[in-house]
Amino acid sequence: MRRIALGVCYEGTSWLGWQSQAGGNTVQDVLEQALGRFTAQPVSTICAGRTDTGVHALNQVVHLDTTAERSLESWVRGLNALLPDSVSVQWVNEVPDDFHARFSAQGRHYVYLLRQHRVRSPLLQGRVAWVYRPLDLAQMQEAAQHLVGQHDFSAFRSSQCQAASPVRTMTHIRIEQQGDFFLFRFSANAFLHHMIRNLMGMLVYIGQGRQPPSWALHLLAQRDRRLSAPTFDASGLYLAGVDYPEQFGIPSSKPDDLLYELSGLRFGETAQKK
Amino acid sequence: MRRIALGVCYEGTSWLGWQSQAGGNTVQDVLEQALGRFTAQPVSTICAGRTDTGVHALNQVVHLDTTAERSLESWVRGLNALLPDSVSVQWVNEVPDDFHARFSAQGRHYVYLLRQHRVRSPLLQGRVAWVYRPLDLAQMQEAAQHLVGQHDFSAFRSSQCQAASPVRTMTHIRIEQQGDFFLFRFSANAFLHHMIRNLMGMLVYIGQGRQPPSWALHLLAQRDRRLSAPTFDASGLYLAGVDYPEQFGIPSSKPDDLLYELSGLRFGETAQKK
Repeated sequence: MRRIALGVCYEGTSWLGWQSQAGGNTVQDVLEQALGRFTAQPVSTICAGRTDTGVHALNQVVHLDTTAERSLESWVRGLNALLPDSVSVQWVNEVPDDFHARFSAQGRHYVYLLRQHRVRSPLLQGRVAWVYRPLDLAQMQEAAQHLVGQHDFSAFRSSQCQAASPVRTMTHIRIEQQGDFFLFRFSANAFLHHMIRNLMGMLVYIGQGRQPPSWALHLLAQRDRRLSAPTFDASGLYLAGVDYPEQFGIPSSKPDDLLYELSGLRFGETAQKK
Repeated sequence: MRRIALGVCYEGTSWLGWQSQAGGNTVQDVLEQALGRFTAQPVSTICAGRTDTGVHALNQVVHLDTTAERSLESWVRGLNALLPDSVSVQWVNEVPDDFHARFSAQGRHYVYLLRQHRVRSPLLQGRVAWVYRPLDLAQMQEAAQHLVGQHDFSAFRSSQCQAASPVRTMTHIRIEQQGDFFLFRFSANAFLHHMIRNLMGMLVYIGQGRQPPSWALHLLAQRDRRLSAPTFDASGLYLAGVDYPEQFGIPSSKPDDLLYELSGLRFGETAQKK
């Protein structure tokens, strides 16, 4: 038996999230089907972060156990030939038996892409969330700083969250603006169910001036989901990467890799300068 | 009766091209349905460039005649509320009666986005075409220069093309590379049916070293579609903008606008520099 780790990229709009369901149509279902066909064995997988319906991943880390003997490159090619266009395997590594995609993970990086514009863009639909009203970057940045560190995030936790504790350590939040576009980076040891979409709901309220930055502190202290803003759109959210101890040799990928991946559009930068 | 011009953006993957069909499911069909509901009148439209299935537009220019009296801003908001997510109206202008979206157009600008990478990207699927084998930028640039100017483009014309003449004036072709991404800009007075996708097929053959850059000259001279490369993928192709005489006051949009539109991803540029 060998333990194999995979880096999986997917466009979440087509799928009912990561987690396998009786009706199928989840990323785990199609990945396990492809793995089953490729190895000619039933395969079950464990992932680093169970994403919701509509949430994307650049580098979801997954592990599985198999007796199949194939070269690492043939795993990548073989699986990608069996997977739908909206899912692909980016890399495959053999890992030690004590590697666990979920429990060995030390940090998760998510990115949220948001555009503020008068008119929605069909070309960005499903990949970048959209707001009509202007956003104040500085107000959102100030609010975000209140969230960094170890906190009880009960105010931002879905009622369906199964985590034993609502306490998480937010290692950093960075928010940048370029023109109409806002990029939010969230890094933490782990996230609660709907936590980033709930934080985004709050940050957008603050950015639109409906609440002051100190509202973040107030909500954290109150620990009551009902007092906060609605859960924000899934379409701008990407699981960008997962950190593991170095000995496991998992390809590191920070949010920047996502941006690179998506950046056929960096040509725009050049174009703007002319 | 007033003549109205619209700038329409659409994601082509969901639609059977621009041109209305008996079975519906074209951009013209959904736009005319929304216009019909908005004005409470039957509306027919004429566009600047009839795009194929899977081809996108940033600024397709469309005109129509109507007796409806509404503010220009309410046209934009009203139509966008009635259109599906994959189509939106970017602007609406009143234009003189002698404006014609197709016949007044003096130039069309298309952009083609292509990525060369070992593994296909689900996040770029449908918006950026993909090739596995490496491409030589200089070879493609050299070939492209043979195409600039007035030529008989019969070698790159679909057998279904209805144009009276195969002669077109290519005002420029520019090809840029950034990392894995290749951006092709094509500008001409007008294009034949499948012309850019057929040119892309040829350029990719040349970029992959299957033919020398002079093949472009050879194919132009032969005027035989059967000698050239297969029609390339529609998914990377965008109608970026259309030029009209200034007196019509049509918002100008060159390919760079598209790149800006798509460039939530310009953040990647910053990230790479760290």
